[in-house]
Amino acid sequence: MNNSAPIGVFDSGIGGLTVVREIMRQIPNERIVYFGDTARVPYGTKSKETVTRYSRQIVRFLKKQDVKAIVAACNTVSAYALDEIEKEADIPVIGVVKPGARVAADTTKNRKIGVIGTEATIGSRIYTRYIKEINPDAEVLGKACPLFVSLVEEGLLNDPVTDEIAMRYLSSLIDSGIDTLILGCTHYPLIRSTVGKVMGEGVTLVNPAYETARELRKLLEQEKMLNGQSHELGTNQYRFFVSDGAERFIKFANSIIKYGILSAKTINIEEF
Amino acid sequence: MNNSAPIGVFDSGIGGLTVVREIMRQIPNERIVYFGDTARVPYGTKSKETVTRYSRQIVRFLKKQDVKAIVAACNTVSAYALDEIEKEADIPVIGVVKPGARVAADTTKNRKIGVIGTEATIGSRIYTRYIKEINPDAEVLGKACPLFVSLVEEGLLNDPVTDEIAMRYLSSLIDSGIDTLILGCTHYPLIRSTVGKVMGEGVTLVNPAYETARELRKLLEQEKMLNGQSHELGTNQYRFFVSDGAERFIKFANSIIKYGILSAKTINIEEF
Repeated sequence: MNNSAPIGVFDSGIGGLTVVREIMRQIPNERIVYFGDTARVPYGTKSKETVTRYSRQIVRFLKKQDVKAIVAACNTVSAYALDEIEKEADIPVIGVVKPGARVAADTTKNRKIGVIGTEATIGSRIYTRYIKEINPDAEVLGKACPLFVSLVEEGLLNDPVTDEIAMRYLSSLIDSGIDTLILGCTHYPLIRSTVGKVMGEGVTLVNPAYETARELRKLLEQEKMLNGQSHELGTNQYRFFVSDGAERFIKFANSIIKYGILSAKTINIEEF
Repeated sequence: MNNSAPIGVFDSGIGGLTVVREIMRQIPNERIVYFGDTARVPYGTKSKETVTRYSRQIVRFLKKQDVKAIVAACNTVSAYALDEIEKEADIPVIGVVKPGARVAADTTKNRKIGVIGTEATIGSRIYTRYIKEINPDAEVLGKACPLFVSLVEEGLLNDPVTDEIAMRYLSSLIDSGIDTLILGCTHYPLIRSTVGKVMGEGVTLVNPAYETARELRKLLEQEKMLNGQSHELGTNQYRFFVSDGAERFIKFANSIIKYGILSAKTINIEEF
């Protein structure tokens, strides 16, 4: 495998761009091929079987782009389909759940950790499982926040409606006395300030996107797969593919990532 | 074609059930096969090409169920793909846009008509086109309300958040002095009372679901395709298929339709 080969990153839509942003910051030499399944978003209300089938199609597409490693930048995919993806990929695969769980387990002082995410991620109890492997005494409280994804996709990032919905979703977590809260959906870092305001200063927010990029860096170092060459920005270093609505995607992506996304290509993912 | 063959009805998800409910009320002898594309919902933010491809797959599935007519119970599909569906189907096809446009054109007194719907439906300006064919002097004001579908799917039917979002979306329509408002998305009849409260008593709400069922009845009469036999409820008269999450669908469907939906079957629509 060529070290200058790109990293494949995918998500149900635009949320995974928060992971891309962290990879760009932490390992700026790496090339990235991103796929956002904008035609079939959201994943968080879909069944395990459907999410797995979609993820395997995406892995087959990314493999065709000769990626050297794959990041499943979606909590629902990481919760439901990581084993299947690893089987399909036969190159290193990283999800977002394990890195987030590890940091939360290290961060908490009172051993009370909250997790917010989609219905699928929370229902799978996967964060609970990983956290308890590290710290069996930890208490993990999950809360599904299904409207957050729609509110982010509508751009209501600093808005009284988002505040009101956040207060409803988070009130039980505030009452429970957690000191650490995992943002268990890659859309949520975009409303981090709202969540932080509602939870108050005593609660540390964990962003798995940041931790995932760190873990990716470590993995590439260990496997001697880091890209030593530096690239000029804009020279095909970052490529973006979606299953629908490329223009809408570009607009949104440019508001998250500051490198200027020149183009995104629409593909028919059902063919893979 | 056998007159006792079922009517095929489809939507991106659960919204089309408001049309099913009207068909059950107005033509109770008819059998129905419903398909909700719950794996790929929502359609309202997708491109014309994607919505057309999905719709053709669904028509092929419904044809395999030997339906005698098809109702595209989704405004986005009716706006983007009706011609293509008619080509694929070669049996009578009805959308929801034309019936809604006709009634609105007949209802308005001041010739100012509002339409609310998905971004796709509003962007296509299809209601404007149909209304102006009937009444060239009419002024048609469209407003996309993208969050309404998510709010309905989350069950916030009578909720201060939905009120707040409705006030934002509808304020420009109130100011414009319309006397008639088309609920141009099959989810919206479920928040009819919120929309009515915000718009005030001077504005008549048009529900295309009701008008579509009337038009279907008329069509079946004209073509001598009405089902003369009455069925006992529950004896396979109504069959429901989805592309994902059958249990979630059944729960929601039973809150909309009072006949008791015994079961729904998940199929892989990508195979059609």
